[in-house]
Amino acid sequence: MNGVLYGVGLGPGDPELMTLKAYRLISGAEVIAYPTLERGDSFARSIAEDIINEEVEEIAVEVPMSVERGPAQAAYDLGATQIAKRLREGKDVVVLCEGDPFFYGSFMYLFSRLNEEFKCEVVPGVTSVTACAALAARPLTARNEVLTIIPGPIDEAALEVRIAAAEAVAIMKVGRHLPKIRTVLDRLNLTQYAHYVERATLPNQLVLPLSAAPKTAPYFSMILVTKGNDPWL
Amino acid sequence: MNGVLYGVGLGPGDPELMTLKAYRLISGAEVIAYPTLERGDSFARSIAEDIINEEVEEIAVEVPMSVERGPAQAAYDLGATQIAKRLREGKDVVVLCEGDPFFYGSFMYLFSRLNEEFKCEVVPGVTSVTACAALAARPLTARNEVLTIIPGPIDEAALEVRIAAAEAVAIMKVGRHLPKIRTVLDRLNLTQYAHYVERATLPNQLVLPLSAAPKTAPYFSMILVTKGNDPWL
Repeated sequence: MNGVLYGVGLGPGDPELMTLKAYRLISGAEVIAYPTLERGDSFARSIAEDIINEEVEEIAVEVPMSVERGPAQAAYDLGATQIAKRLREGKDVVVLCEGDPFFYGSFMYLFSRLNEEFKCEVVPGVTSVTACAALAARPLTARNEVLTIIPGPIDEAALEVRIAAAEAVAIMKVGRHLPKIRTVLDRLNLTQYAHYVERATLPNQLVLPLSAAPKTAPYFSMILVTKGNDPWL
Repeated sequence: MNGVLYGVGLGPGDPELMTLKAYRLISGAEVIAYPTLERGDSFARSIAEDIINEEVEEIAVEVPMSVERGPAQAAYDLGATQIAKRLREGKDVVVLCEGDPFFYGSFMYLFSRLNEEFKCEVVPGVTSVTACAALAARPLTARNEVLTIIPGPIDEAALEVRIAAAEAVAIMKVGRHLPKIRTVLDRLNLTQYAHYVERATLPNQLVLPLSAAPKTAPYFSMILVTKGNDPWL
């Protein structure tokens, strides 16, 4: 009998924000897998580090950073092949995913390759969106407000249209797109409602009004725009 | 010295989807608080039930179901007064919140009343949105897709505009708005991409293509629309 593929969300970074289910599956795992950058770093693995047991087999899926899709797709093909081998031996494989596996996560690339042949279970995790709202002390959405989650890399015109039409906004993956996002928010007179959070829930996190944010941002950074006139009162 | 107010997310319903931090704070709490319906039911309390210690003091904030805001606001005023009393005695108060406290949660009504006087910490939780995506086996968003989260109660015209402009969509609080939502999705030719989930992660959950969903839906139900041509491949 084949093993089960688990895609396990680990939350935004603080290990205490993983779920009890993630804790159980990871600490008891026989085989784990995770994406790594070319130097071997894995943010997901670092979140789970303290609970990974010593006998576990680790499959590192080395994903090259590239704007072209081919090299990354080849890496997922290889990773899926390695994972499938263990699943066919009847071993469960636990894939470590930062945040939530199905929310801008790389797990879906493994899932799409393995879901037809194998039983897959996705364990949701805390996303950076609600973690950032908690840190910024800004309720995201009340009552019947619409929340729009926008990746920072989309082009300036599209970004402006999306933000202008939105009620509450979370802009993900800010990184090098910070100047563009600032320009758009300034033009829409929304900077006063914007909060900047980088490396949410990690020891070196930063939480500031956007107007006081640094000039450069890391990939793991977010801007929340909650226009509301204290709509929750 | 005053106690600390904790707003603690419990996730979508399965107690194993609470975070390690929620577990620690709730199991060690001296005072907990939670919203209840008039009959005394509290979904949040039911999720945490097995880890609430026997000596804990419980503050039930009885929120009347009403379309008018006055009666609910009065209930939150009273709850905040009771909680403030304990905080002033130097006791921490842990507020139990289904899902995430700042994501369509009632915690923000207590937070807005207590945040200025007392230290508050919000512990994010797994939202029903990613829990439903996990159950429906539908990745929510890949790469630079925009995700729009829409409350089902908004009026039909607004709903149609929002969905038509969106890439990936999660429609929350479906309940009695199911027929209206079906009509809009049919008109936009999106029913084929829509999945229906009710009572996600609870023993009586239901996960179906929208075309096969029941005629009536409970309040805790969601429709996910992921138009994607397997964009993650």
